[in-house]
Amino acid sequence: MINIKALFFDVFGTVVDWHGSIQNESQIFSQEISQEFDTFLFTDKWRAGFRRLQSSVANGSRDYLTMDEIHMEILEELIDEFDLKNISSTDKQKFNHSWHRLKPWPEVILGLNQLKNNRVVSTLSNGNLSMLNKLSKNTKLPWDCIVSTEFFGTYKPNKEVYIGAANLLNLHNSQTMMVAAHAYDLDAAKLTGMNTCYVYRPDEFGIGKGEDPGDVSRFDLVVNGFDEIEEEIVKKYE
Amino acid sequence: MINIKALFFDVFGTVVDWHGSIQNESQIFSQEISQEFDTFLFTDKWRAGFRRLQSSVANGSRDYLTMDEIHMEILEELIDEFDLKNISSTDKQKFNHSWHRLKPWPEVILGLNQLKNNRVVSTLSNGNLSMLNKLSKNTKLPWDCIVSTEFFGTYKPNKEVYIGAANLLNLHNSQTMMVAAHAYDLDAAKLTGMNTCYVYRPDEFGIGKGEDPGDVSRFDLVVNGFDEIEEEIVKKYE
Repeated sequence: MINIKALFFDVFGTVVDWHGSIQNESQIFSQEISQEFDTFLFTDKWRAGFRRLQSSVANGSRDYLTMDEIHMEILEELIDEFDLKNISSTDKQKFNHSWHRLKPWPEVILGLNQLKNNRVVSTLSNGNLSMLNKLSKNTKLPWDCIVSTEFFGTYKPNKEVYIGAANLLNLHNSQTMMVAAHAYDLDAAKLTGMNTCYVYRPDEFGIGKGEDPGDVSRFDLVVNGFDEIEEEIVKKYE
Repeated sequence: MINIKALFFDVFGTVVDWHGSIQNESQIFSQEISQEFDTFLFTDKWRAGFRRLQSSVANGSRDYLTMDEIHMEILEELIDEFDLKNISSTDKQKFNHSWHRLKPWPEVILGLNQLKNNRVVSTLSNGNLSMLNKLSKNTKLPWDCIVSTEFFGTYKPNKEVYIGAANLLNLHNSQTMMVAAHAYDLDAAKLTGMNTCYVYRPDEFGIGKGEDPGDVSRFDLVVNGFDEIEEEIVKKYE
């Protein structure tokens, strides 16, 4: 019998609905500045720009920037690209902090609280600790601890991250489970001996725009939300 | 105006009453094994043995051991020294886990919840993450995040720890406050620019056996419990 003692959660896309939240904040911003723009496209480009710049930092071609700084740099680019005029620095700052206010998917808090009764629930995200902390505090996510890949000086899907996270909790990888809406993350976790739980997030990139993970039978659990995980763990492992 | 955005808390002695808790668990253990011994002395020696062995690990004269392993090694020594007979390994294990069940001082949860409304509350302890996690989970301590000196590969009062902790939250040290019942910890924090809050714990080493911190006017705040901190911060800084 395997005892799943701790679950590690990917955050952006898996726990929080970044696309819906940012598009919503973009619509509010559009009203506040009284200028219309394509908020769906804006949202996609903000996230894509973040990923691009984060990669430049990760591969050393840019100096270290915090996630807030990266978001602001991309925001400035997009303000130019979408030809938005006369935006005050206060408005920019407030809009940039949208990324601290991303809403959890509806069943997340319930599911985490169910799991938390018998197990440790932790993040395992490429977001840095200060960002994860702000996000978690603003949305009252009930983590037992916040683990960031920042602690290991590298990013997912580097295997050191999954090994390091289990080590920090003094557990074998086989006593832990990685939960994510992204197949690449789980495939990497599995190679280190972690159990895996794939969560469908069919609206991650906008309504009806989810990931195609391929054949999901390679994952230990497959669920439609966090509120199914505890029951599935008990059914499969206990 | 200084805005105290995050507070870092020492844990053993400051947040939790290790002496009272371990002496209480020792009394229960004594009854369970039907053998009497000096539980006050036993408690002192368990903690002192831990500190001694932790130092050996820290200075490299012993290989790495988890805190649980250290506690067990000292427990085995004390079982010999106090001449306790026929202790099953299950009983030993259960007794050793007393260190995961240390009780918070009475006003701690209230105080942390008050502070948490406007600020980040985090540990900054020499305890490793898995230990801090178990302890915090068992006693429902409402941390926003758990920071351990383990993340920096060294121990308090090394200045890297205080600088690293503020960095992780993307704050200047002057925006943070170290809270401890131990002057050496606050003196070190102060040297890195952190604000300091001394908490009197007059019973840390048993009833009436607290630390003498010397002249406390060198600390920014001096309180009798966590329930005074929020008000004192507002009075002094805001």
